[in-house]
Amino acid sequence: MIYLDNGATSYPKPPNVLSSSMNSLKNYSFNSGRGGYSVSVKTAEKIYSVREKIGNMFHFEPQNVAFTLNCTMALNMAIKGSVKKGNHIIISSLEHNAVYRVVYHLQKNGIATFDIADFSFDEEETVRNFEKLIKPNTSLIVCTAASNVFGVAFPLKKIGEMAKKHGIRFIVDAAQAAGVMPIDAEDCNIDILCAPGHKCLFGNMGTGFLAVKNDVFLDTIIDGGTGSESKNPNQPDYLPDRLEAGTLNNSGIISLGAGIDFIHAKGMDTIYKHELMLTDYLYNGLSKNENVTLYCPKPEKNKSAPIISFNYKDYPSEKTASYLADCNIAVRAGFHCAPLAHEFFNTIDRGTVRLCPSVFTSAGMCEKFLNCIKKL
Amino acid sequence: MIYLDNGATSYPKPPNVLSSSMNSLKNYSFNSGRGGYSVSVKTAEKIYSVREKIGNMFHFEPQNVAFTLNCTMALNMAIKGSVKKGNHIIISSLEHNAVYRVVYHLQKNGIATFDIADFSFDEEETVRNFEKLIKPNTSLIVCTAASNVFGVAFPLKKIGEMAKKHGIRFIVDAAQAAGVMPIDAEDCNIDILCAPGHKCLFGNMGTGFLAVKNDVFLDTIIDGGTGSESKNPNQPDYLPDRLEAGTLNNSGIISLGAGIDFIHAKGMDTIYKHELMLTDYLYNGLSKNENVTLYCPKPEKNKSAPIISFNYKDYPSEKTASYLADCNIAVRAGFHCAPLAHEFFNTIDRGTVRLCPSVFTSAGMCEKFLNCIKKL
Repeated sequence: MIYLDNGATSYPKPPNVLSSSMNSLKNYSFNSGRGGYSVSVKTAEKIYSVREKIGNMFHFEPQNVAFTLNCTMALNMAIKGSVKKGNHIIISSLEHNAVYRVVYHLQKNGIATFDIADFSFDEEETVRNFEKLIKPNTSLIVCTAASNVFGVAFPLKKIGEMAKKHGIRFIVDAAQAAGVMPIDAEDCNIDILCAPGHKCLFGNMGTGFLAVKNDVFLDTIIDGGTGSESKNPNQPDYLPDRLEAGTLNNSGIISLGAGIDFIHAKGMDTIYKHELMLTDYLYNGLSKNENVTLYCPKPEKNKSAPIISFNYKDYPSEKTASYLADCNIAVRAGFHCAPLAHEFFNTIDRGTVRLCPSVFTSAGMCEKFLNCIKKL
Repeated sequence: MIYLDNGATSYPKPPNVLSSSMNSLKNYSFNSGRGGYSVSVKTAEKIYSVREKIGNMFHFEPQNVAFTLNCTMALNMAIKGSVKKGNHIIISSLEHNAVYRVVYHLQKNGIATFDIADFSFDEEETVRNFEKLIKPNTSLIVCTAASNVFGVAFPLKKIGEMAKKHGIRFIVDAAQAAGVMPIDAEDCNIDILCAPGHKCLFGNMGTGFLAVKNDVFLDTIIDGGTGSESKNPNQPDYLPDRLEAGTLNNSGIISLGAGIDFIHAKGMDTIYKHELMLTDYLYNGLSKNENVTLYCPKPEKNKSAPIISFNYKDYPSEKTASYLADCNIAVRAGFHCAPLAHEFFNTIDRGTVRLCPSVFTSAGMCEKFLNCIKKL
């Protein structure tokens, strides 16, 4: 199989991720922070080491990293935990349903309203598009680091500066960027960063996190046992306990730590360049095919995640993907849970076929893909 | 190590759970329901087979089983998704913070109020204790199947009958019962059953589920991509999509399926009897020690989960557990995230030491534990 669906989840996982998963299922599957016996304490230390790895990568305090089931859960906790009745939210025009459905739900329930700021290939214009939507009650800007459909990235540093100037909390959905594009939350004034563990960070499915700046306080949407302050009927005020109720996915979290080790060993920049080289190759190959429509400029360093979307003739995107599946090539077609992005790039009628190579994808695989498209 | 903390998470996991975890990390780590390629479709089928196993075990439709990070997340989704402004909730006096903190949060935010129904060793009295708290605006009864501290079980069938008579939704927290005590949701009129996958069901940590009756509609607390109805800004109305936003913990879910296979191969009744035999042995041994305080009658079939709590002299429970940790015996001490239960059984000053054997615990291990206590 030629796997070009790394935007859904990265596959394969690095060998050290698999070995660490198995090791942690055997040796770190104890309730950390609840038991005083040796293996429970060791498990807590191991989990904490992953908080440190994430904290170091994105510039957060380790204890401010809270683990979740996935990036969607993290975004729900970040957005709903931030909003008070009467607030106004600004999101980008390329948001995933993990953001769009959340703010839509808040608006439908009369809790907050939202507006959508258009992406522009001109970074300053993108920032202005956000800024001009600010109202007196705007409390939150939520923006994806890069579109999960078209790869284009947002100027996080500039948006963060603007948000800070207005005293507005800034949440970033780093679903397609965390692990491949460098993100410094301090530098970009990001108040809360949400990310999956199983995409560019190479951990297992069932992992995600939100990382929160020191001065950010969140209301909880999930309450429950934390093994701390048990007599207090409120969630503890401090992190990560406040945001981590119930038993964690230990082996998943530890696999995510191994994924970060893998990235450091390879070099994030090396991985990013390899994937951009492949998207470049794919883009050039596709752009020579007169039957193919591409929707954005080719992915470029620091301007895009390594993701391309295309369509063939007037085929429904699913038809093209189905043909590729018959060629043993795995891609995702349709709307990629991002209707806003499809509206913005005029692909809302049939969606797109998405290509996401990884560090494990070779140029030869991409060549085979291009040959299959030629034969379509 | 002698592990008597299976109430936190079961350890070890059965061999087929470990092998299935590794197999699924390699072969089923694809986004089910989003991709049309062969391994994605096979993954979706594998995930569905676990819904069927859970559905069969507890008497729900397979598609009404939604997977979560843990039982806490499931309970939050069940309770918060059920409650409308002005509703009244009744919970039991032995609830875990995964229920207590949830209803407390709802009350603090002016959404719902709650009252607490006392447990009684007389089943009819327990039911009356719930019934007499019913108000015109009572919409929900939430009850644990068995106390996570003291093991005592609630008469679910009788409470369910009473709830049905009054047209009140009935949610059961089966954290310590699912997989070891038989629960038939149809027979007990349970509208929503919440359970962890990693305790008596022998799956990995990072797994839980809520199973929902056909006529039960829940508002969502987590919104996001479902790979279905992507253009709809609302969560789909149908299950499981409505309650499963974002990427699932595939290997965890599949491990949970393997855990259920293990239970069927051993026989749930055999497992339950083995664990009760051990709690009987532990209880008898401890009750002969004049320095030990026990708080409940010994666990009895269909009246209790295989869990015992005790204290030694006037020691803080943590001191006893720490001594046991030095003997390489793993138990949990303190409040077990269940302050209500400690208030009820008058252990709120120092908590308890909790003993939870599993099918992998032997009588010899329990004997060693009793010998250690003798030497204390």
